[in-house]
Amino acid sequence: MTGVTPTSRVGVWSEAGRLRRVMVCSPGLAHLRLTPDNCDDLLYDDVMWVSQAKRDHFDFSTKMRDRGVEVLEMLDLLTDVVRMPQGRAWILDRRITEAQVGAGLVEPIRAWLDEMPAETLAEHLIGGLTFDEVPDDAGGPFLAALGRQEEYPFLLQPLPNTQFTRDISAWVFQGVTLNPMFWPARRQETLLTAAIYRFHPAIAGEDFPVWFGDLEQHPIDYGAATLEGGDVMPVGHGTVVVGLGERSSQQAATQLARSLFKADAAERVVLACMPRSRAAMHLDTVFTFCDRDLVTSFAPVVDRITTLVLHRDDSAPQGMAVRRDDRAFTDVLGEALGIELRVVPTGGDRWGASREQWDDGNNVLALEPGVVVGYDRNTNTNTLLRKAGVEVITIDASELGRGRGGGRCMSCPILRDPVD
Amino acid sequence: MTGVTPTSRVGVWSEAGRLRRVMVCSPGLAHLRLTPDNCDDLLYDDVMWVSQAKRDHFDFSTKMRDRGVEVLEMLDLLTDVVRMPQGRAWILDRRITEAQVGAGLVEPIRAWLDEMPAETLAEHLIGGLTFDEVPDDAGGPFLAALGRQEEYPFLLQPLPNTQFTRDISAWVFQGVTLNPMFWPARRQETLLTAAIYRFHPAIAGEDFPVWFGDLEQHPIDYGAATLEGGDVMPVGHGTVVVGLGERSSQQAATQLARSLFKADAAERVVLACMPRSRAAMHLDTVFTFCDRDLVTSFAPVVDRITTLVLHRDDSAPQGMAVRRDDRAFTDVLGEALGIELRVVPTGGDRWGASREQWDDGNNVLALEPGVVVGYDRNTNTNTLLRKAGVEVITIDASELGRGRGGGRCMSCPILRDPVD
Amino acid sequence: MTGVTPTSRVGVWSEAGRLRRVMVCSPGLAHLRLTPDNCDDLLYDDVMWVSQAKRDHFDFSTKMRDRGVEVLEMLDLLTDVVRMPQGRAWILDRRITEAQVGAGLVEPIRAWLDEMPAETLAEHLIGGLTFDEVPDDAGGPFLAALGRQEEYPFLLQPLPNTQFTRDISAWVFQGVTLNPMFWPARRQETLLTAAIYRFHPAIAGEDFPVWFGDLEQHPIDYGAATLEGGDVMPVGHGTVVVGLGERSSQQAATQLARSLFKADAAERVVLACMPRSRAAMHLDTVFTFCDRDLVTSFAPVVDRITTLVLHRDDSAPQGMAVRRDDRAFTDVLGEALGIELRVVPTGGDRWGASREQWDDGNNVLALEPGVVVGYDRNTNTNTLLRKAGVEVITIDASELGRGRGGGRCMSCPILRDPVD
Amino acid sequence: MTGVTPTSRVGVWSEAGRLRRVMVCSPGLAHLRLTPDNCDDLLYDDVMWVSQAKRDHFDFSTKMRDRGVEVLEMLDLLTDVVRMPQGRAWILDRRITEAQVGAGLVEPIRAWLDEMPAETLAEHLIGGLTFDEVPDDAGGPFLAALGRQEEYPFLLQPLPNTQFTRDISAWVFQGVTLNPMFWPARRQETLLTAAIYRFHPAIAGEDFPVWFGDLEQHPIDYGAATLEGGDVMPVGHGTVVVGLGERSSQQAATQLARSLFKADAAERVVLACMPRSRAAMHLDTVFTFCDRDLVTSFAPVVDRITTLVLHRDDSAPQGMAVRRDDRAFTDVLGEALGIELRVVPTGGDRWGASREQWDDGNNVLALEPGVVVGYDRNTNTNTLLRKAGVEVITIDASELGRGRGGGRCMSCPILRDPVD
Repeated sequence: MTGVTPTSRVGVWSEAGRLRRVMVCSPGLAHLRLTPDNCDDLLYDDVMWVSQAKRDHFDFSTKMRDRGVEVLEMLDLLTDVVRMPQGRAWILDRRITEAQVGAGLVEPIRAWLDEMPAETLAEHLIGGLTFDEVPDDAGGPFLAALGRQEEYPFLLQPLPNTQFTRDISAWVFQGVTLNPMFWPARRQETLLTAAIYRFHPAIAGEDFPVWFGDLEQHPIDYGAATLEGGDVMPVGHGTVVVGLGERSSQQAATQLARSLFKADAAERVVLACMPRSRAAMHLDTVFTFCDRDLVTSFAPVVDRITTLVLHRDDSAPQGMAVRRDDRAFTDVLGEALGIELRVVPTGGDRWGASREQWDDGNNVLALEPGVVVGYDRNTNTNTLLRKAGVEVITIDASELGRGRGGGRCMSCPILRDPVD
Repeated sequence: MTGVTPTSRVGVWSEAGRLRRVMVCSPGLAHLRLTPDNCDDLLYDDVMWVSQAKRDHFDFSTKMRDRGVEVLEMLDLLTDVVRMPQGRAWILDRRITEAQVGAGLVEPIRAWLDEMPAETLAEHLIGGLTFDEVPDDAGGPFLAALGRQEEYPFLLQPLPNTQFTRDISAWVFQGVTLNPMFWPARRQETLLTAAIYRFHPAIAGEDFPVWFGDLEQHPIDYGAATLEGGDVMPVGHGTVVVGLGERSSQQAATQLARSLFKADAAERVVLACMPRSRAAMHLDTVFTFCDRDLVTSFAPVVDRITTLVLHRDDSAPQGMAVRRDDRAFTDVLGEALGIELRVVPTGGDRWGASREQWDDGNNVLALEPGVVVGYDRNTNTNTLLRKAGVEVITIDASELGRGRGGGRCMSCPILRDPVD
Repeated sequence: MTGVTPTSRVGVWSEAGRLRRVMVCSPGLAHLRLTPDNCDDLLYDDVMWVSQAKRDHFDFSTKMRDRGVEVLEMLDLLTDVVRMPQGRAWILDRRITEAQVGAGLVEPIRAWLDEMPAETLAEHLIGGLTFDEVPDDAGGPFLAALGRQEEYPFLLQPLPNTQFTRDISAWVFQGVTLNPMFWPARRQETLLTAAIYRFHPAIAGEDFPVWFGDLEQHPIDYGAATLEGGDVMPVGHGTVVVGLGERSSQQAATQLARSLFKADAAERVVLACMPRSRAAMHLDTVFTFCDRDLVTSFAPVVDRITTLVLHRDDSAPQGMAVRRDDRAFTDVLGEALGIELRVVPTGGDRWGASREQWDDGNNVLALEPGVVVGYDRNTNTNTLLRKAGVEVITIDASELGRGRGGGRCMSCPILRDPVD
Repeated sequence: MTGVTPTSRVGVWSEAGRLRRVMVCSPGLAHLRLTPDNCDDLLYDDVMWVSQAKRDHFDFSTKMRDRGVEVLEMLDLLTDVVRMPQGRAWILDRRITEAQVGAGLVEPIRAWLDEMPAETLAEHLIGGLTFDEVPDDAGGPFLAALGRQEEYPFLLQPLPNTQFTRDISAWVFQGVTLNPMFWPARRQETLLTAAIYRFHPAIAGEDFPVWFGDLEQHPIDYGAATLEGGDVMPVGHGTVVVGLGERSSQQAATQLARSLFKADAAERVVLACMPRSRAAMHLDTVFTFCDRDLVTSFAPVVDRITTLVLHRDDSAPQGMAVRRDDRAFTDVLGEALGIELRVVPTGGDRWGASREQWDDGNNVLALEPGVVVGYDRNTNTNTLLRKAGVEVITIDASELGRGRGGGRCMSCPILRDPVD
């Protein structure tokens, strides 16, 4: 099995090792388009006070920077990419298609966007574009005719869930997955992330495989093979955990596993099959690592996980075999890691624990072993973590949390050390 | 503009001309898998008594046959197709993929399905396949491991909405669209329909263009370019109507229009932009043709339609131009057809009309000019139609209507005469 | 303990003894006011084809009459009552109040209703009254001003759930409960039923206690003490079963029990505490008696029932004591009845059983020991019952079942024999 | 018409005159019982971080106190009341009834609560009481048996909506309404408020009529006559505005009007009939006064208001007459007040305005003419108000706003000056 490339600027080798580089995406134009009427469709529970959300997100980034993490802002990276003619063309070729904007609008819109300043273009690629925003002389007759419908104002849909960079891609050891998202409302996010990885000098120069979801190799519908980074945990020790539930499917996980095994990049993929639950959309909403041997876990969901283990088997048809392990999920995982996992439960009484899980009390982001970023509101869970020796750096969740995601959801580690 | 090929066995030249061949799909295995818990996800309002639904559907088919219509049953056609090695391979190559069933299951499932009797295979392609249904010795270790999860019982999802053959494809004059469906729950239906058109001798021998959605030419995600047949009306006189709303988008309609114009197959495509409404999922749920110059229409929705007209313009970039027409939709349409349309409204008082629209009172299927099939329960609307001189043949809706669709929704005309 | 009064025309002494008199309520005007928009508020899953529902309900009544049951139609009884000046006044004094119609409308509306033919008045008391239906000269200036609001058309709300006479009152041995209903949409039904019991010669002449809910004694809000007849089963042998869940509460059940114990009318009340479940709104949606020792039961819910037993204890403060019994509900109940209960489960595979429970497969009405009325669609459950020796008389559910209720829900037994 | 009693400590004579005394209710125990599962039933959109909500509520109170307003905390007032034996008995006689807690629990629970420290009792009356909280030796055998059901943990339901003291009662000129609330989840709030007004020396000593909802005079179910303070505006100049919609009905408003007219306390009641809309639950969510002649208004709802005017007419049957006024609501209102109303719309673009209305941008509380308290997040609306000369004092809404209510909703003015 190949190991860490010490000089690489990409690669995630654990869940709790030192975090060195991370990509985030601050709230912005997309969130200015959320309303009580459309927020459900855009997967938000409520509307957001955007300027406060920006301040809180800045605090999140700053606290990571203070700990020595290089924080890359997705909008900035995207701006750099669309400043490059090649990068801009690569994105617009795939985004301004007849399938996305209609047969009559491709040429005028493309021509107009070709000339748009990079900052503005990047902002609209994430924030969406309304019919109204296209100048009359740029849109042509199709836009003039189509653009008058109050109930369908968007030419390009806003992508507010870019706030949760975690899900769009997942760095697993030295490679990455470019995730086919479950909800149509999030699918366009992957294209933008892929473009950044492909063109931006901060990443593009490195040598890394795409384990799953390569937009060049498979220009196809992924069907039921959906994967989201909130379900993917490269825990190290040759082991990757994938949560299976509403968002991520075995159809994707088995493809990822085969790819990892073939490259000698992992020994086993532990599948955590979650019960259907409104509260547990991703594995990391109920279970995250805080230290090399310490996790926080929401028992009402995690105790009901069924565990399957995919492992390399060169004699099997796909180079992998599978077995069901009926022990508790944390026991199976501990064994794979060669440690005994300490589990810190969600804090509070029956009502409080339910609120803190909902408010991402278990969705913390480890910056290094024993140091995590979590939401300030989850005081009971944070206290339990602190009693267990974890340093909890807190940020405000009053706005950021309305899309249901915490520190782990809002971060995409690009370079993280292994734990020993 | 090219005209009717008199000897062709395919081609739909009007909405109310003599119907000669139609494809339907009787309720079956897929509907036996509906439950109160999953029916919403599968787009049904309620569960269904399947054996009664089958009887009622048989009555629907019989009444069409009694009028001289050749009624093709989709399950039978599909059975014929999978009996042909080529047809079976074409479908299974596209259905039993890693994206659909997972990397570990393709080979064993495919091998097992390759040997399955044609009747059984066709039934499962529409009705879905559960993990339990695969014999232990056929499924292999992946199936043994994955197949024990109560909450995710399906290896292939059931496709109960095949009942509404109308939406999956749309014959428009001498060609057809293979529709990229809006809801993921319906997307696999198109593959099966495409296979029938490609391989079944009842259709495959004819010469017909695919106006939009060719699975061979565009093996890609259609993105926002979704189209459903309930929104497509080849009304004749060089005119096609496309309803735009939740299900069908301008992204698809403009591609269809360009394709029609390029082939000299139509002069104009009238876009009926519907308001957002739970009751109006397709244009044909609020508006259908009953005779050459008579339509039935649900005013609360139809009166709020905004009308755009796409027409051929060889000098325009895409070979087409667009204009908004602020007159009433029926006036625009009447002008395009060169007639004055008579409009029969939904019957009943304010409550009754709302119920009859909901129960598909406006979703009738014309068998020939002035003869339609409708649901028996819509007595007020049926009476108004009869007073207007329309012969209304009735069928029972108590079970069939639970997926929200009437005679037009449940039929896919394959050969229909023009009206003069 | 007092026993059956052999000559009384009221009294229900068992769940499966010979049924002699029953009150039902056919669909009518109230159901003509259901629309897709208001049906949820009125507790219906879907709109209904009213004329078909009437035919099916007639079939239900006829089949009971054919078995010698005296079937009383609630609308007829109510018509008789409002034909009596006293009866009319008693109802209108309580229905046409400022609280119900507003300070400006009581006098004109009351004056108008005072003169209304009895048939029409009874129909509107159940079917509701719209502002439009009051003649201009009768309504006065308040009606003219208030009655022009499209969105609030009802002066008296329609009461479509009278279809389920079971819930409104419950005859328990020689007495009756007049039920404070859980949902506000059903509360006015109780007044009408109470008026019938108070004034109609078919019942009023008999001597019967009101165990709970007497509108004369307690002219108050019942608060959390709600009770619905679908949860009340006077199984006999000194035992009454009350299901506790969303609709019926311990607050009501304990008052009922005390009342029964005080009158020496029962020895014990078995409380069946149901899990929260959309499918189990009343106990009789998952559990009914078919014979003296045979029940039909939907295991996924019934197996999760917690059982408490209230029994007479003259030394206890309220004259009753309570104990929890951790055995299976049917075992506790069998012991109380001194028999071993045979249990016929819902029929069908996992999907089918779930559909048949939903479609009231377990909600049958016993006409005599071993003879029940059930919906025709539940063929698997009906077959299992028949194999167990039960005669199942079937009726059509395609319309009647849309309010979620079967034979038991649609009947209010007024006179039923004990089983030996 | 009688005027202001200058020395009275109660009485609200305008919407924008100097506010002198106000009752509020800080978040507390009730909010600690909110969970993602129960918050909908308790009318909250989301769970709340209670300790932060308390801090923000303290800030709200402090800013009012800084302006010279006497702020009364409902929990404190209630504590004082239950410290008085008479007050405690009055409440417990009405709260710990068989209807509310069940026949077996009244005595033991009452005995236990009779001895409870006042602070604790007041907290549980608002915050709810779980079965678990009753000591084993206090609850008796009924509690031991009933209290083991996970799914029904509450003996007394929590009342988190007390946060919105505005709705529970409404001071109108020299009197008050004790409001029968629309949702059962809020009905118990009125009892507590009534007890405070009846017993607490801060209010009880004053002489004030109860215009509507007197719990002593009408110990009855109010039926459809529901009223909530968010719909009641004693604007002065002999005029009271009542919004009619989901929560407040004409049945209540006409009774209130008659009562006011009979006491010579008002000349007219303007009824603002609102369209059905999820965003407009009370009139004050779309329309509030900021100054003697300046209001803030959400046009998409307010423009659709239908206006009726009730006015004194001693010759009419109820002492009042009604007329419909087809002018714009603000025009009708301005005329009644003898001024021309300036209207400040909700700020922001189409998305922003929709968000700010949702976040209570129009739900401000006037402390004196031209000075209001509003949420900080509504920066666009606040800016428009400031440009119009209004001083906007801001408070944080990130937690407080989750029950959908702003400054006006969270305050119950008890003493407010007229505007000249």
